[in-house]
Amino acid sequence: MATKEGGLAGVVAGQTAICTVGHEGHGLHYRGYSIYDLAKNATFEEVAYLLIYGRLPNDPQLKQYREKLKSLRGLPTAITALLESIPANTHPMDVMRTVCSMLGTIEPETHQHDAQEIADRLLVLFPGALLYWYHYHLHGQKIDVMVEASSTAEYFLKLLHGKGFQADSALGKLMIQTMDVSLILYAEHEFNASTFAARVCTATLSDVYSALTAAIGTLRGPLHGGANEAAMMLIQQYSSVKDAEEGMLKKLNNKDLIMGFGHRVYTTVDPRSEVIKAQAKALSLALNDNVIYAVSEQIEKIMWDQKKLFPNLDFYSASAYHFCGIPTGLFTPLFVISRTTGWVAHIIEQRQNNKLIRPTAEYIGPQPQPFLEIGNR
Amino acid sequence: MATKEGGLAGVVAGQTAICTVGHEGHGLHYRGYSIYDLAKNATFEEVAYLLIYGRLPNDPQLKQYREKLKSLRGLPTAITALLESIPANTHPMDVMRTVCSMLGTIEPETHQHDAQEIADRLLVLFPGALLYWYHYHLHGQKIDVMVEASSTAEYFLKLLHGKGFQADSALGKLMIQTMDVSLILYAEHEFNASTFAARVCTATLSDVYSALTAAIGTLRGPLHGGANEAAMMLIQQYSSVKDAEEGMLKKLNNKDLIMGFGHRVYTTVDPRSEVIKAQAKALSLALNDNVIYAVSEQIEKIMWDQKKLFPNLDFYSASAYHFCGIPTGLFTPLFVISRTTGWVAHIIEQRQNNKLIRPTAEYIGPQPQPFLEIGNR
Repeated sequence: MATKEGGLAGVVAGQTAICTVGHEGHGLHYRGYSIYDLAKNATFEEVAYLLIYGRLPNDPQLKQYREKLKSLRGLPTAITALLESIPANTHPMDVMRTVCSMLGTIEPETHQHDAQEIADRLLVLFPGALLYWYHYHLHGQKIDVMVEASSTAEYFLKLLHGKGFQADSALGKLMIQTMDVSLILYAEHEFNASTFAARVCTATLSDVYSALTAAIGTLRGPLHGGANEAAMMLIQQYSSVKDAEEGMLKKLNNKDLIMGFGHRVYTTVDPRSEVIKAQAKALSLALNDNVIYAVSEQIEKIMWDQKKLFPNLDFYSASAYHFCGIPTGLFTPLFVISRTTGWVAHIIEQRQNNKLIRPTAEYIGPQPQPFLEIGNR
Repeated sequence: MATKEGGLAGVVAGQTAICTVGHEGHGLHYRGYSIYDLAKNATFEEVAYLLIYGRLPNDPQLKQYREKLKSLRGLPTAITALLESIPANTHPMDVMRTVCSMLGTIEPETHQHDAQEIADRLLVLFPGALLYWYHYHLHGQKIDVMVEASSTAEYFLKLLHGKGFQADSALGKLMIQTMDVSLILYAEHEFNASTFAARVCTATLSDVYSALTAAIGTLRGPLHGGANEAAMMLIQQYSSVKDAEEGMLKKLNNKDLIMGFGHRVYTTVDPRSEVIKAQAKALSLALNDNVIYAVSEQIEKIMWDQKKLFPNLDFYSASAYHFCGIPTGLFTPLFVISRTTGWVAHIIEQRQNNKLIRPTAEYIGPQPQPFLEIGNR
C-alpha cells in the first residue's frame, strides 16, 4: 500500500483522542474544546492541564497546578554548566534539544517521575534554561530564574526583558495575553511531523526524554517550527507596503519558497490565524507601528491574490512575537515550550495502545551484484 | 487510507536505493551487495564508505579513509566536561543521545562540515566518548582516546579493555573480527523505526545532528535496539540447558514477551542471524564456554518448537558481544556506532527528493463540547 503524493500525505497512521484538525468540518478542537473558546476564555496553564492530564482543571486544581509549576523553576548545576559551555552562536533549537537530552540523564524517567511530571518540569525549565543561555552569552549575565510570575507567558517575558518589563502596564498586560494566546494556539496539532516523530520513538518503548528530544529536533526544520522565524525574516525585508508588494511579486516570479502560508492539513484557512492576527493588530496599534503589521497584511494579500494561499499560524505569530520584543531566534523555542504539552499527551496515548511504527519502502536501488575484491574496484 | 494492523505495517512510506530487506526474495543487500559477501570479504570501514559515500572504496580510497577516521578521534573539552557531569547510573543510550546533540552545538552542520563529514566524525567520536564516560565513572579514570588501532572494531575493544587486550593473539583477532562482522550486520536496515524517525526529522529540513539524535532515542527502546540487551539478560538467567528449557517453557506459559525473536519484516528467517551465530559459536569454543552458547541454542530450539519464531540479529549478537567482554549496557550503543552509517545514508537520500512526512490520524475523541467556565467544572 503506497500513497501517490508521498510523505504519508492522507495516510492514517493511527488513532487519537487528543485533537481534531478540522476533519468533519468542526475546526480545531483540543479534547472537544474549540481553540476559539480556549484562546478567549482559558489560560495556557488550563490548556496544558487539559492536554497533559486529560481534563480542564477546576479552581483548586488550577491553583495547585500553578503553584506546582512555580516550584519547579530551579536549574540544576549540571544544566547551567552545560548552558555556559554551549557556544553563543548556537541555533537556539540546538540548545533546547541538548538541554532536554541532558535533563534525561540527571532527572531520568521512573515510575514516580513519569511522563506527566516530566512535562510539568520541562514547561518551566525550558524558558529558564533558554533565557539563562541567552543572557549568559549575550550579556555575560547569569540570570536568576526564580523570579515572581503567575503564568508561563509572564515568566518568559520577565526572564527575557528583566526589570524593564512592566507586567502591570496596559502594554505589558497585552503582551502577556498575546504570549498566553500564542502558547494555547501552538500547544497541539494531531500527527504533525514533530509529534509523529515523538510517537515513532515512543513506539519502541523508549523514554519520554528520547521522544521529546526527537520532537524538538524535528520541529527545528524550516518546513515545520522554523517557519515563524522564516516569516519574520521575510517581513523585515520590506520597509513599506509598496516595497512589500514589489518584493513579493519578484519572489513569486522567481518561484521562491514563501514560509508561513498554506498547510498540509488545511485547504482553505488555518483556523488559528485569525486569533493570532487579532493579537498582532492590537499590539501594532498599542506600539504605533506603521510598518510591520501593514507589510504583513500586504504579504497576506499578495499570497492570496497570486497563489490563493492563506496565512497559517506561523505567519502572524512572527509579528506578534516581534511586537513582544522577542528576538527572532527564540520564536521556535517558544513553540517547543507550548508543544511540549501536546507531545506528552501523544506519548501517553501512544503507550496506552502501543504498536511499533515501522513502515516499509519501495526499493529502487541496484539489483544484486557480485562482490568486488578491492583490487578490482 | 488506513492500515488494518496499525503501526504502518506494510505501508510504503517512500523509496530507497540503499538496502533491500528480503523483498523480491533476494535477502539483505546494501546497495546491491549481499550482506553474506560483505560480512565475509569486507571490513566495516568499507561498508561504512559504501553506505555514506555510495560505492565500495578502492585501495587508495580505503587507506585514506582509515587515516581520516584515525585523525578524527579527539574529544573536545566541552564533550569530556559533559561526560564527567553525566551521572554514573545513566542509561548509556542517554549518553550517546546527549553527546550527539551536544556535538551539534560545537561542530554544527555547515556546507563544509556536511552530513558525510559528520558521519565520519561520529563513527570515531562515539566509541571514544562512550568509553571515556564508562571508565571515568566506573574506574575514576580519564582515558586517552588517541590509542593506535587500525579499525573501529579494534579501537572499541582497545578503549574498553585497555592494555589487557591482546589484539595480536588468536583470541584477540577473533574478537576483533566478530566486532567487525557485527558492525557490518547492524549497519543498515531500510525503514526500521530509528531510520524512519531520522527521515521524519530530516523531512522538515532539520540538521543532521537533530535527525541522528532522534534516531538514537528511537533505537533506545527495547522493541528496537534494546533487544540485544534484553536477550542477554534472558540468557544469563539460566545456568544450564535443562534450566533454560524449564524456564523458557514457564515464560511461554505465562505469555511473557521474549526479546530477540521474530521480526516485523522477515517471516521465516533473519538472514543476519546465521552469520553472527557462527561468530558466537567460534568464540564459545575459543573460550571453553559450556553454558552461554548452549543455553542460547536451547532457547532458540524452544522458541522454534513452541512458537515457530526464529532468532533475529539481536539474539546471537548478545552472546557474541558477551564473549568479547562487552558489558550488556554497552550493546545498544554499539548498534548506534554501526547504524550511524545507515542513518546518514538515509538522511542524504531523504534530502535528495524531500517531502514533509506528515500522516494523519483517525479521531476517536470527544465530540465538540461547550467550554466550561472554571466555576462549573
